[in-house]
Amino acid sequence: MIRRALLASLALIISPPAQADTLIDNVNGITLDQNGKLVRFTGLLIDKDGKVAKLLDRKDKRPERPDFKEDGKGRTLIPGLIDAHGHVMGLGFSLMLLDLSGTSSLGEAQAAIRQYAADNPDVAWIIGRGWNQEKWGLGRFPTAADLDAAVADRPVWLERVDGHAGWANSAAMKAARVTSVTKTPEGGRIEMAGGQPSGIFVDAATSLIASAVPKPLARDLDRAFLLAQAKLLEQGITAIADMGTTIQDWQAFRRAGDKRQLAIRIISYGHDIDNMALIGGPGPTPWLYDDRLRMVGVKLYLDGALGSRGAWLKLPYSDAPGQKGLPLLSPAQLRNKMVRASMDKFQVAIHAIGDAANAEALDAIADLTADLPGERRWRIEHAQIVDPADIARFRQLGVVASMQPIHQPSDRRMAEGRLGPERLKGAYAWRSMENAGVRLAFGSDVPVESADPFPGMAAAISRTDAAGQPFGGWYPEEVVSRETALDGFTRSAAFAGFAEDRIGTLMPGMRADFLILESDPLLASPDEIRRMTPLETWVGGYRYYKKKAG
Amino acid sequence: MIRRALLASLALIISPPAQADTLIDNVNGITLDQNGKLVRFTGLLIDKDGKVAKLLDRKDKRPERPDFKEDGKGRTLIPGLIDAHGHVMGLGFSLMLLDLSGTSSLGEAQAAIRQYAADNPDVAWIIGRGWNQEKWGLGRFPTAADLDAAVADRPVWLERVDGHAGWANSAAMKAARVTSVTKTPEGGRIEMAGGQPSGIFVDAATSLIASAVPKPLARDLDRAFLLAQAKLLEQGITAIADMGTTIQDWQAFRRAGDKRQLAIRIISYGHDIDNMALIGGPGPTPWLYDDRLRMVGVKLYLDGALGSRGAWLKLPYSDAPGQKGLPLLSPAQLRNKMVRASMDKFQVAIHAIGDAANAEALDAIADLTADLPGERRWRIEHAQIVDPADIARFRQLGVVASMQPIHQPSDRRMAEGRLGPERLKGAYAWRSMENAGVRLAFGSDVPVESADPFPGMAAAISRTDAAGQPFGGWYPEEVVSRETALDGFTRSAAFAGFAEDRIGTLMPGMRADFLILESDPLLASPDEIRRMTPLETWVGGYRYYKKKAG
Repeated sequence: MIRRALLASLALIISPPAQADTLIDNVNGITLDQNGKLVRFTGLLIDKDGKVAKLLDRKDKRPERPDFKEDGKGRTLIPGLIDAHGHVMGLGFSLMLLDLSGTSSLGEAQAAIRQYAADNPDVAWIIGRGWNQEKWGLGRFPTAADLDAAVADRPVWLERVDGHAGWANSAAMKAARVTSVTKTPEGGRIEMAGGQPSGIFVDAATSLIASAVPKPLARDLDRAFLLAQAKLLEQGITAIADMGTTIQDWQAFRRAGDKRQLAIRIISYGHDIDNMALIGGPGPTPWLYDDRLRMVGVKLYLDGALGSRGAWLKLPYSDAPGQKGLPLLSPAQLRNKMVRASMDKFQVAIHAIGDAANAEALDAIADLTADLPGERRWRIEHAQIVDPADIARFRQLGVVASMQPIHQPSDRRMAEGRLGPERLKGAYAWRSMENAGVRLAFGSDVPVESADPFPGMAAAISRTDAAGQPFGGWYPEEVVSRETALDGFTRSAAFAGFAEDRIGTLMPGMRADFLILESDPLLASPDEIRRMTPLETWVGGYRYYKKKAG
Repeated sequence: MIRRALLASLALIISPPAQADTLIDNVNGITLDQNGKLVRFTGLLIDKDGKVAKLLDRKDKRPERPDFKEDGKGRTLIPGLIDAHGHVMGLGFSLMLLDLSGTSSLGEAQAAIRQYAADNPDVAWIIGRGWNQEKWGLGRFPTAADLDAAVADRPVWLERVDGHAGWANSAAMKAARVTSVTKTPEGGRIEMAGGQPSGIFVDAATSLIASAVPKPLARDLDRAFLLAQAKLLEQGITAIADMGTTIQDWQAFRRAGDKRQLAIRIISYGHDIDNMALIGGPGPTPWLYDDRLRMVGVKLYLDGALGSRGAWLKLPYSDAPGQKGLPLLSPAQLRNKMVRASMDKFQVAIHAIGDAANAEALDAIADLTADLPGERRWRIEHAQIVDPADIARFRQLGVVASMQPIHQPSDRRMAEGRLGPERLKGAYAWRSMENAGVRLAFGSDVPVESADPFPGMAAAISRTDAAGQPFGGWYPEEVVSRETALDGFTRSAAFAGFAEDRIGTLMPGMRADFLILESDPLLASPDEIRRMTPLETWVGGYRYYKKKAG
């Protein structure tokens, strides 16, 4: 829940004081160097600009009087983790939703809704999710009247736990102009009671209410941004590639920067060409706000997702004969957008999930490479299902594979159904990519998944889910080493965003972005890694997050 | 003409070095203080932040070793002039046009066009104006073939000196898909030659080509901005209220700021509510880039202009019986927009030229004042034709009259025709406003007029045109004093934009924005003032412009 006091504190804590020489001593320090070689140290010296001045060995002399000194007490210090693929504002808005998934009765849900309304007097529509009348033992769907009893003064719209139904109060139905004579959309159902809509809308009928929800105001964006930033810092993310920034998102990032409330580093990819050009103008922006914000490129969507069978496959889905998904861009459209961006030196990141989409993205890159000299650092986002015959082409064409390890355990059963065993050989194929010499950048796809990078690292090294299943890992030949997982979330994620000259490692001269952890992720078990949370998160030599004791 | 070297130099000169203590000594220094009282000084001491540290009298001790010292040699030093109403990007684009007004033959025009094309290889469409086949002694309209002989590789579109005809080359007609069968729009004429369009399009037919001109790219905006800035600095303008900033304009301003190329100060008013909200978000932005950019409010258009009889009058136009012009917003629309902006603390600037528009703007302000406490500092832009009975209401409602003195000599004959003698009593009525206690902010409306503030000051104190006509001044009872004219372009222009706490005077603590002039505008004749140009223009204690010798 978004309490006003919390938001005020979010805004306050992140305005750093003047920098000073800082020594973090007595740590189990770990970083990769620029070449990916593991470096260990016991002290980290930070200069007045918030950059790493020196990594100290046990035997190295410490400065006599640093302005600030912290005793790491032997804990582990690693570089701040970089999410190579996320949606910052999407995360923020997801955090603003009213979450009813923990309620166990209608009365409990009503109390939570009432409390949320009181905590958020400025929110015009109360939007939430997660209710389940079965869990409540209600024996019926809840009604608009049940909801009106909690909040009647403004619209409330709550999605059921499975996403297949929504629950509206009377104000929401009124705002959406839904009445007893409203026509039910095809593929949907309006629950009725006494000849009137009861307040429950199923499947396609949810759009009747959802389409009336107003667009967020700037202050909603600002609130969402601060919530997202606080969550990312708490999870150990110090930088994130924002995959599909709109001008509205960008303005929220800039407002945070202008007000000195921008703590995390955002590597922004414009949402298609229009946003790219409006945000970046004639080319990528400079790094702004002490390396905290830069628009570097464009995000293009070439296909959809596997779950909805929108991913574009070479051969039909195993569980839907005849269906192969569809490209969202024609060959000419894709190449035109790529040329338009590249001519102005914007980096191109192509969303490609299915094996046909990945092949087409690689084809397009191959077609354009000769005419676009210089280092383009093409990115393919997700690279989820790749024909093993295409893997080597990533390396040949210098394409970064931007992958999200956590998708593998999340998608496992669904992917088995969609693809059948043969195609799974090129699915979430991290080790095959690595062995082919492909640069692997790791991310979360937040809010599709949690932004927490530790379960992602655990998945990367184990191919198991939160329950440790399947035992021994799913297609375990595709696990990567702990060092590669760390690299994917640090050095290579920075490289993927043209940021390796300032973040991703803790070598001298780099921004001092780092985490303090209870234990060493290069030694811990996958299960231990999965449950790790940072004790402290530092960005640019300033501690923005400290875990509360207990 | 926009030469690449010029643009490179524009970008270079305006990146200031680190500041240092600076003394400008031996000057005839003039400023108003915060209360409008005239203050004279002989030395200006500037601190490391580019702010005024101290005004020195002849007898005051000078610092022994300032980091930088300039001998003013007895010249006059005045505060940097502030244009309270202009269009920055409009000025920039007008400077990018190919200007043919000085050509005296077709051959000369062709040579100029050819040269412009060579100087601007990246410009997709060559756009220009000012040609006059009568002046060339051509005895006929020029043709597309005449233009193709100069430039055939890309579209060229040139407006005639009177704006009533345009001249296209073959590439422009092809791009606009104009052929022998193109239908002539009503109110227009396509000149034909041998059954084909000759290349000349008259009145409404100009839209056939004009509508095909591509929207400017971001790099065009950046170029236009740098040109506008250089021109403003050269003319002695150190700050300007940009009246109707679009998101595209704003991004160009920010790019200049981000690249440390922003020298002038821009007080931005969003072009209607959408741009205001997208740029400012939940409220006005902070001052950015060391007080060089801020979005403070919104510009609303309530009526049109006098020349086109779009200004909204209480009684019919004298030269068009029955026509009174029209409001562009209904009473409800105007008030809704004003409330929407004011609720988020955006300042409201209402364009109102006709007496009916001014009365309605005042009515709307009166309607809302009770429900919107706090200092709103409402602005009416132009306030050109005001019913004398309404003048006192500006004062009563605390409305700033944002007026452009140069419009008076430019519009004189036209206004006489449109309005007749009776209504002229409330036209360009600066002194009546001042006597009623209304705050007067002066500007230029550039690019409708030149941004040069000196002819504006001359008009304000003389009510005469560049030729000194009419002798003794037009309705001379409306002249203001030299001090009021200076105030309108400095202290009150800053006040009008909520900037009086940092610019507009040279009192200690204010930004050191000032001009060095050959002579004293408080002593010079109107004609001398009209021809004044700054010897030097300083912004924030740094000299951005120095007039070339000779």
